[in-house]
Amino acid sequence: MDGIFITFEGPDGSGKTTQLKKLGEELKKLGHDVLVTREPGGTAISDKIRSIILDPVNEEMVDQAEVLLYAASRAQHVHQLILPALEAGRIVLCDRFIDASVAYQGYGLGLDVEQVKAISRYASSGLQATRTFILDVPVEVSMARLHQRASGATTAAEQLDRIEQKHVDYHGRVREGFHQIASDHPERVRVINANRSVEEIAEDIWSQCNRLLEEHFA
Amino acid sequence: MDGIFITFEGPDGSGKTTQLKKLGEELKKLGHDVLVTREPGGTAISDKIRSIILDPVNEEMVDQAEVLLYAASRAQHVHQLILPALEAGRIVLCDRFIDASVAYQGYGLGLDVEQVKAISRYASSGLQATRTFILDVPVEVSMARLHQRASGATTAAEQLDRIEQKHVDYHGRVREGFHQIASDHPERVRVINANRSVEEIAEDIWSQCNRLLEEHFA
Repeated sequence: MDGIFITFEGPDGSGKTTQLKKLGEELKKLGHDVLVTREPGGTAISDKIRSIILDPVNEEMVDQAEVLLYAASRAQHVHQLILPALEAGRIVLCDRFIDASVAYQGYGLGLDVEQVKAISRYASSGLQATRTFILDVPVEVSMARLHQRASGATTAAEQLDRIEQKHVDYHGRVREGFHQIASDHPERVRVINANRSVEEIAEDIWSQCNRLLEEHFA
Repeated sequence: MDGIFITFEGPDGSGKTTQLKKLGEELKKLGHDVLVTREPGGTAISDKIRSIILDPVNEEMVDQAEVLLYAASRAQHVHQLILPALEAGRIVLCDRFIDASVAYQGYGLGLDVEQVKAISRYASSGLQATRTFILDVPVEVSMARLHQRASGATTAAEQLDRIEQKHVDYHGRVREGFHQIASDHPERVRVINANRSVEEIAEDIWSQCNRLLEEHFA
């Protein structure tokens, strides 16, 4: 595997998607071959699975089904899109990956974390990110940003989805889960204070990314 | 768990769906409270997952995604429908269950059988059938029945689906897989010679079922 695989994690409302896009644009300006993608989704099949997971009409979904659907979406995404891109030497930026399953389903829903990890490993054939940025904000901040986004929504896609509607306590457990993941994997994970301006966060990520690129292309 | 959980396994074209329906009708005539259901499917969410698995347009689907989608569909089906029915003392007849994943994905696709079993166990929270009937026919017979069905198809639903189109070699491995499952679980599984008339097969299943009911209600 010759490429670099960078994942962005953190709650909705942490600004991770904005940051991922900015980093992608900067890297492209420098002439890098970049693939920007996201989970759940990234391929036609994954997008169909994503729509089942996120559709508020599917409120009867049991926890095990949610874990397995995320994993199915990931399996397709990894094998059809991410692995071929990495084998071609590209830089892959992915909005959420395995850590999201561990944080949301494992820590958030209170499911067995080791089982969630085992199913994710099966889905990804053991692929893990080169570097993971966890965008960290207090729950009140991310929830306030989300509600602001929802109140200005003009289309259904901008309204809060099934996952976002879940309770604030749940989001607190998810945040603690991300902190636990960071402390379990200090070599891979960097926690970014995302309770700052878009520019300050981007600068922080950019400087860390530069070091990674220097090491990789050294 | 006070109910009885009976699963029907075997290739498409083995006549298992016909037999399952006949058994359901006979049991209902005797006053039993019967739930007839099927995998993949059985609930609204499972049916949405089923449509992704079986749609020929999704030919890019990787093996891991297929395994995980079947498991996700099963997780919803087990927890939302089957377990509550068994807890209410009903007789549940299910068209395909875990053995189908093991035979088709494990033995058929050549994936790791133990991993397929582990994911299925996670999905079903360990639920296993009280009795499993494997309807066994030579591959040429089941394929011929399928082609006959497809050539007379007047709607898209009657045409061969993505799984059915797969090669005859694959179906040979699936059949051997079913035989292996039967020999691994002699207490649970009964192999039924399905290369006979509908009536002969039904009589065989009915007599075996009667013994099961006598034991259960003894």
